[in-house]
Amino acid sequence: MKTIAEYSSDVELAIRSLGLPGGKLSSLYEPIEYGLSAGGKRIRPVLVLMGADAFGGNALSAMTPAVGIETFHNFTLLHDDVMDNSDLRRGRPTVHKKYDENTAILSGDTMLTLATKYVATVDDAKLRRVLDTFNDMALRVYEGQRMDMDFETAESIAVNDYLEMIEGKTSSLLGASVKIGAIIGDASDKDADLMYEYGKMMGVAFQIQDDWLDTFGDSATFGKPIGGDILNGKKTYLYVAALAEGGQTADALRAAFNIPAGEMRIKAVTRLYEKLGIDEKCKKAVGHYSSKALKALNATSLDEEKKEAFRKLAEKLIGRKK
Amino acid sequence: MKTIAEYSSDVELAIRSLGLPGGKLSSLYEPIEYGLSAGGKRIRPVLVLMGADAFGGNALSAMTPAVGIETFHNFTLLHDDVMDNSDLRRGRPTVHKKYDENTAILSGDTMLTLATKYVATVDDAKLRRVLDTFNDMALRVYEGQRMDMDFETAESIAVNDYLEMIEGKTSSLLGASVKIGAIIGDASDKDADLMYEYGKMMGVAFQIQDDWLDTFGDSATFGKPIGGDILNGKKTYLYVAALAEGGQTADALRAAFNIPAGEMRIKAVTRLYEKLGIDEKCKKAVGHYSSKALKALNATSLDEEKKEAFRKLAEKLIGRKK
Repeated sequence: MKTIAEYSSDVELAIRSLGLPGGKLSSLYEPIEYGLSAGGKRIRPVLVLMGADAFGGNALSAMTPAVGIETFHNFTLLHDDVMDNSDLRRGRPTVHKKYDENTAILSGDTMLTLATKYVATVDDAKLRRVLDTFNDMALRVYEGQRMDMDFETAESIAVNDYLEMIEGKTSSLLGASVKIGAIIGDASDKDADLMYEYGKMMGVAFQIQDDWLDTFGDSATFGKPIGGDILNGKKTYLYVAALAEGGQTADALRAAFNIPAGEMRIKAVTRLYEKLGIDEKCKKAVGHYSSKALKALNATSLDEEKKEAFRKLAEKLIGRKK
Repeated sequence: MKTIAEYSSDVELAIRSLGLPGGKLSSLYEPIEYGLSAGGKRIRPVLVLMGADAFGGNALSAMTPAVGIETFHNFTLLHDDVMDNSDLRRGRPTVHKKYDENTAILSGDTMLTLATKYVATVDDAKLRRVLDTFNDMALRVYEGQRMDMDFETAESIAVNDYLEMIEGKTSSLLGASVKIGAIIGDASDKDADLMYEYGKMMGVAFQIQDDWLDTFGDSATFGKPIGGDILNGKKTYLYVAALAEGGQTADALRAAFNIPAGEMRIKAVTRLYEKLGIDEKCKKAVGHYSSKALKALNATSLDEEKKEAFRKLAEKLIGRKK
């Protein structure tokens, strides 16, 4: 197997060679190229390639489906950025800011169909399984996004609902990416499902870790200012875990979130989290879901060297947690 | 074969029996049911069922793909209504007015994936052809919509570009509907392609007819006030055909469109169209494309009775043109 960096640069090259229509259709396709060119870790298409490679498939035949997965991911970013009215993504203007909202909507729609087309380039014998995996994943992503939107105005959120939300919004795509790769690589149904579980649990751990980093991380390595989620009143794992304490704790949490001055609010909420041991609870949850991911991986028929490659990926994504 | 009304009521029943998820996911799926329940002629799913029936397939196995086609059509309406900021659709508030814009975007995305899932319920042996037809059609629709958006600010529009736009935005879906039905009904590749041509040309005739009705129709039968396109400065077949005259005529047309008072503008533009013979030109174009549709239909291997059913549908959609 190649290194993660090698897979990632293969994906980058394939994305740059897409050759979408130009000319009078450039107003539709150029924003797609812009969205896809933002870079990033390309973790999802890398998972497709690794899945195909690991189970003995031809990584080359997995490349177009891998680009399809990345195109799907970027389609969700285009539409999420419209819905959240976000100005920036990876330090560049979002598509609806660089162009306009209607362009982000329509070029986003186009990306979803392109993604389906790219993913459907698998062999006929695998088309049904791959397409079902892809479509079911897409529905989970929308459902997760919808739950996240509904959380914004929800009075209280159960921890289980929060976990269901991130399983939909974040984890199902990671699970489906590696599962589609595994199917392309001729994995058994059992192995393909175990790889889905690996990807999904890794996604849950990643998201909780991301929530944790936003409050307890180091702004230098996190890449964003610390406390953004608290400032924006975002319903994170930390928030719902604290809220689950109920009674006066829940009241204190809501009061802390209502402090108008940003810096004071960040400090008050962070202090409360610490007092409640949310910091540790978070780390434990990350460890718990990471273990679940590795347990699923270990249960596959992959040899030790290949398992090690997927462990490395999990480490890279989540960081080593003891 | 059944009558158009019977197929249509079968579709209506199937749509009402979809059974989308409710509960905490109703904020995602209820707007979809609302959008789908607006009624209408259901011409596109009827074309799927008729295509399957005509070529000897099981119309029952075409029902879910037919609902998929209607779901796709309604997905485009949800997003188009956001992009056009339309308040009403079939006399009811549009989804983004009844709920909100983000709901229309996200539930629309969900409809596109649901549509793909429904269309993909065909037999494995037909999946590749049906899916390719569906995805390529979807891209043509987005490209047509994009051209239509770009026309809004275009200084001049060639008649051929206008035709390309409506072929994408309107006709490709009619063509793909009947082609997918034909494939499900085990039509030969040649017959399936001829039925696509029938649907596509019928769509072009229908759209030009619709443009004509908006200026020269009878508001009682048209169902909308006459002159709406002129009031909104919409780039119609009439407009581009008049513009094609060039020189002073084009100047006069632009001047007429710049008249501030609505009623006067409608009268001036209509008079100019009449003077230029655009009225007749339009009718001729409708006849031309209707003939093309019927010619393709006649070239299929269908027996006379089945051809007659598709002729009736064309008549119903476009009206008899001599």
